Amino acid sequence: MPKLNECYLDIKESYLFAEISRRVSEYEKNNPGKDIIRLGIGDVTLPLSKRVLDALHKGVDDQGDPSTFKGYGPEQGYGFLREAVSGYYGSNGVDIDPDEIFISDGAKSDTGNITELFDRDNTILVPDPVYPVYVDTNIMGGKSVKYMAGNEENGFLPMPDPKVHADVIYICSPNNPTGAVYDKERLTKWVDYALDNHAVILFDSAYEAFIDDPSLPRSIFAIEGAKKCAIEFCSLSKTAGFTGTRLGYTVIPKDLVFPTSRGGQMSLHAMWFRRQSTKFNGASYIVQRGAAEVFTKEGMEECRANIAYYKENAKIISEALDANGIWYTGGKNSPYIWFRCPHGMGSWEFFDRLLNEVQVVGTPGEGFGDNGKGFFRLTAFGERERTKEAMKRMEKILQ
Amino acid sequence: MPKLNECYLDIKESYLFAEISRRVSEYEKNNPGKDIIRLGIGDVTLPLSKRVLDALHKGVDDQGDPSTFKGYGPEQGYGFLREAVSGYYGSNGVDIDPDEIFISDGAKSDTGNITELFDRDNTILVPDPVYPVYVDTNIMGGKSVKYMAGNEENGFLPMPDPKVHADVIYICSPNNPTGAVYDKERLTKWVDYALDNHAVILFDSAYEAFIDDPSLPRSIFAIEGAKKCAIEFCSLSKTAGFTGTRLGYTVIPKDLVFPTSRGGQMSLHAMWFRRQSTKFNGASYIVQRGAAEVFTKEGMEECRANIAYYKENAKIISEALDANGIWYTGGKNSPYIWFRCPHGMGSWEFFDRLLNEVQVVGTPGEGFGDNGKGFFRLTAFGERERTKEAMKRMEKILQ
Repeated sequence: MPKLNECYLDIKESYLFAEISRRVSEYEKNNPGKDIIRLGIGDVTLPLSKRVLDALHKGVDDQGDPSTFKGYGPEQGYGFLREAVSGYYGSNGVDIDPDEIFISDGAKSDTGNITELFDRDNTILVPDPVYPVYVDTNIMGGKSVKYMAGNEENGFLPMPDPKVHADVIYICSPNNPTGAVYDKERLTKWVDYALDNHAVILFDSAYEAFIDDPSLPRSIFAIEGAKKCAIEFCSLSKTAGFTGTRLGYTVIPKDLVFPTSRGGQMSLHAMWFRRQSTKFNGASYIVQRGAAEVFTKEGMEECRANIAYYKENAKIISEALDANGIWYTGGKNSPYIWFRCPHGMGSWEFFDRLLNEVQVVGTPGEGFGDNGKGFFRLTAFGERERTKEAMKRMEKILQ
Repeated sequence: MPKLNECYLDIKESYLFAEISRRVSEYEKNNPGKDIIRLGIGDVTLPLSKRVLDALHKGVDDQGDPSTFKGYGPEQGYGFLREAVSGYYGSNGVDIDPDEIFISDGAKSDTGNITELFDRDNTILVPDPVYPVYVDTNIMGGKSVKYMAGNEENGFLPMPDPKVHADVIYICSPNNPTGAVYDKERLTKWVDYALDNHAVILFDSAYEAFIDDPSLPRSIFAIEGAKKCAIEFCSLSKTAGFTGTRLGYTVIPKDLVFPTSRGGQMSLHAMWFRRQSTKFNGASYIVQRGAAEVFTKEGMEECRANIAYYKENAKIISEALDANGIWYTGGKNSPYIWFRCPHGMGSWEFFDRLLNEVQVVGTPGEGFGDNGKGFFRLTAFGERERTKEAMKRMEKILQ
């Protein structure tokens, strides 16, 4: 009889999106024909850019010709794509060797699978509110996490507590769900803390392409010392609309080397290489071809046009909150807008009012953790006119 | 300071392919201009079929149109593909519900990641010789494995030993590396043993499309009772040449339910659904579109034409061995031919003779485990004329 991994029993079921869906369905049943606007969505809606599509077609063609056909590729990704990612980092002023880049099918896989490299016996810090994957993937592996409070006082950007020792620290900036972005000074404090504690920062930069403000770091490796303490996860999901096309990349510096209890040292880069070579067979060649196009000058310009569209939506939402004096984070260098529910309403109370009174659907902040209570998330991934219409409808509730 | 997963220190480094590559490079350096034929390759070489290419192009087009654009898809795969896989099973006389099918980026990912569902405390059986991924992925997770001997007596098809209790059993049929195929009678004995022991069989059917003999099971689920004790992994890598395009699928029956130490039961299907929802974001939509075409009548016919090409190569190799009275497995319902090295030579001794005397490269059997000593693997994935030429060259050594 197999003994199953009972850590799975310790994962909290997330009822957030199921509960949203239930309430919306019930409303629709009782109010047929009502026009509901959905701004809860965390997924892109614009199609891929023309140049990326051309490159994907070219990739497909390559698979039809014996002279260009590609079978098994390198598990860490093709050199052409790792060099393109390295060049992209370079264009942002960050020096990353292609050998430190691992291509994958997405950042969700990598942030989840990276937990395998760590022993159960570690102090792991995650922010609250939090992207649930950070927590659940650790629980699945028998690990426990400690929370760092995000709140109005710290702008939902928790800072290191010198009294707390950590071994592994999750940071997501621009943040999902709060849209808050660490500036250089704050991120430097985290890097310094990690170096002092010999900790590893797992940095999720999935939304970096939404940063316009040149003073804000788009990569943890823009901070001095980070190559000795950080791993970065990124993807083309939000940069280039690859949520359904699938491609991510992870940067593991070769300097991340730690002693073992058996003597000697282990390198996280070497461990991840081994992990990926053994449990992964590389991202699709076709998708890697499309991805490489994203990192060309013209490809990136096309992707930026889509991001600009979403950012204009974010601006529309932010301006409506500003007009009503509502406190929020995000909306400027992020597709997410995270705000305090007006008039002291609870997250779900506000959700119900929006749904019932103006037929707008968003995401109750408390679904992302206790510190999200009384907060609410809207996203910029909707359609322009619908976003405008939603904010117009919401005005009377926000006032 | 993070405590790293020191189980990684227990993985044996496989020097097999590195050592082959080293010896070939050295030979080339010392013998410039010699024409070397490589029959060690375990990767397809023929391009994708026309209909699959068309479907992939269509998938790319869908990503360029707002009305057909796909963002995040279901983590377990689109319904259209799960239904196509279910239909394929049906056409082979096996009834599998689409809900029991999980689409992924490949069987290597799934066979590796499935180990997460099991506790460290299990008796895990793997064959020797073995596809190294089964062993390494268990070692990485702190588990140990027991070996079942494959040898000339059992035709490299180890059978259950009633004196040995197992919790988890790996079976690969048609086998990599030996090409041996379990018949219905032998596979039934394994299913009966698993049911008696309340064990789970992890069945790798990656090479099922090479089976022509209608009496041989192409799925463990062709055996009565298997839905109560087996998980099956398959992929389009060898069925349709997707080694670089990437797509796999795993079947987990809902009946696989086991008691927990905390009381109650856990379902492997539910655990895998949770695992994939948390650590995976679905296979590329574009690739899923191409994959669905494989399972149409016309798509499958085109794929079968490629398989027929490889099988003709296998026949050429088998006939050369037959002509010299050399014992072998595979070659008939498999792309692999696994044979006893002639004249009592060791695997590496034979390798060196082939390389130095006739410039043919194959794979020494002992690289797959102790029981591979004195055996050798050739594959049918080469080009037709090169395969013929290789066997002609080898004649004087095989005699």
